[in-house]
Amino acid sequence: MKYPSKLIGNAVAEFTKLPGVGEKTALRLVLHLLKQDPDRVNLFSEAIAKMRNEIQYCQNCHNVADHTLCEICANPHRDSSTVCLVENLRDVIAIENTNIFRGIYHVLGGIISPIDGIGPEQLQIESLIEKVKSGTVKEVIMAISPTMEGDTTIFYISKKLSALPVKITTLARGVSFGGELEYTDETTLARSIATRLPYENYLVKNSN
Amino acid sequence: MKYPSKLIGNAVAEFTKLPGVGEKTALRLVLHLLKQDPDRVNLFSEAIAKMRNEIQYCQNCHNVADHTLCEICANPHRDSSTVCLVENLRDVIAIENTNIFRGIYHVLGGIISPIDGIGPEQLQIESLIEKVKSGTVKEVIMAISPTMEGDTTIFYISKKLSALPVKITTLARGVSFGGELEYTDETTLARSIATRLPYENYLVKNSN
Repeated sequence: MKYPSKLIGNAVAEFTKLPGVGEKTALRLVLHLLKQDPDRVNLFSEAIAKMRNEIQYCQNCHNVADHTLCEICANPHRDSSTVCLVENLRDVIAIENTNIFRGIYHVLGGIISPIDGIGPEQLQIESLIEKVKSGTVKEVIMAISPTMEGDTTIFYISKKLSALPVKITTLARGVSFGGELEYTDETTLARSIATRLPYENYLVKNSN
Repeated sequence: MKYPSKLIGNAVAEFTKLPGVGEKTALRLVLHLLKQDPDRVNLFSEAIAKMRNEIQYCQNCHNVADHTLCEICANPHRDSSTVCLVENLRDVIAIENTNIFRGIYHVLGGIISPIDGIGPEQLQIESLIEKVKSGTVKEVIMAISPTMEGDTTIFYISKKLSALPVKITTLARGVSFGGELEYTDETTLARSIATRLPYENYLVKNSN
C-alpha cells in the first residue's frame, strides 16, 4: 500500500514486523494512535523502548528482571528450597497466575531440541546443578511441557541431578478440569487411570 | 495477570490500550520484542513517537502531512482542478491505492452525524467552499460512503456548492466486481439497472 505520509508509512511498516500484525491491522493501530494525545503516544513508545533497554536477567533464576534479582527471587517470603524448573518467562507468568506456588523458579531459556539446534549447553542447566549442589534446594519441580522435547529435557536434567540429595517431581498429568473424558487423548487418559488418586486428595486445593 | 517485571507489565498494559489487542496478544507482542535486538526495538518505538509528534495537517486539503503541504498537494503533476471529497485519511489511502485518481483531495475529517454530535461546523466544509469560490476547482467528486450520514453530508455540501460554477459528481453505485447478483441488495441492484451503462463504457478502465 502507498501512504500519503512517510511518517505514517514508517509507523505502519514497524507495526507489520510484529507477529500476527498484517498491513490492514497495522494501519488501524497507527490511525488509532494518530487520534490519541501526543503525550499518550509518547508513554506507549517509551514503555516499549524502556522495557527492551532496561530489562535484565535475574542472576539467580535467569528470569527477566528489573534489577539484578527478579521480584520473585528478591522476595524474602518465597521459599528458595523449592525450585520450579520452567522453559521460559511465559511459563513463569502462567504458574504465578495460579497463585499456588510459593517457591522460586529456574528459567532454562528453552528446551533440548536437536531439530532447532538447541543442546543442553545452551540452556541454564549447569547453573541449576550448581544451585542444587550448594545444598539450599530440597525439591526441583519439573514444570516442562509434556512434549517429546520436554520429556527429553526432563530426562536429561533428572539424570544430571540423580546423584544429588534433591527430590525431583513433575507436574501431575491427567484430565483437565472442565475437560470431557471422551475428548481426552488416550495417553493422558491411560496415565490418569494409572496414577489415580484417593478421592480425599481430589478435594485438596493447595498442595504447597 | 501478574508479571514478574514492572517493565514488562507496563509494556503489556500499553499494548492492551490498542484496539483489538487483549492481554494475551499484548504479552505475545512484548515477548517478541524482548527477543529482538534493542536497536530494532528502539526503531519501532521511535517510528511511533515521531509519527505522532511530527505529523501535521495539510494546509490545503487537511490530510495528514509530513510538512505544511501533503505529498499529494505538493505534487505538481496532480490536477488541482479536480477535488475528491473524502471523510478521512483511510479513504484517501483506499483511493490512492487504486492508482486511478490524479486530482487532489479534500479531507472533511468526518461526516455529519447528529447522533455522534458532529455537525457541519466541525467538518472542513467552509474551507472547501472557499477553495471552490477561489475558482480553481472544476469538479468536486463526492467520495463519501453511501450510508445515511454520508448521503446527508453529500446533500448538505451539494446545496452549499449549488450556486457556484463547479461540477459535482458522486462515485458510481452498482454491483461490485466479482459480486454475485443474487446476493446484491435490492437498492444497489435497482440503482444499477436505472443507471445502466452502454457496454462500450464498461470496458473503459481509466475515467480520469
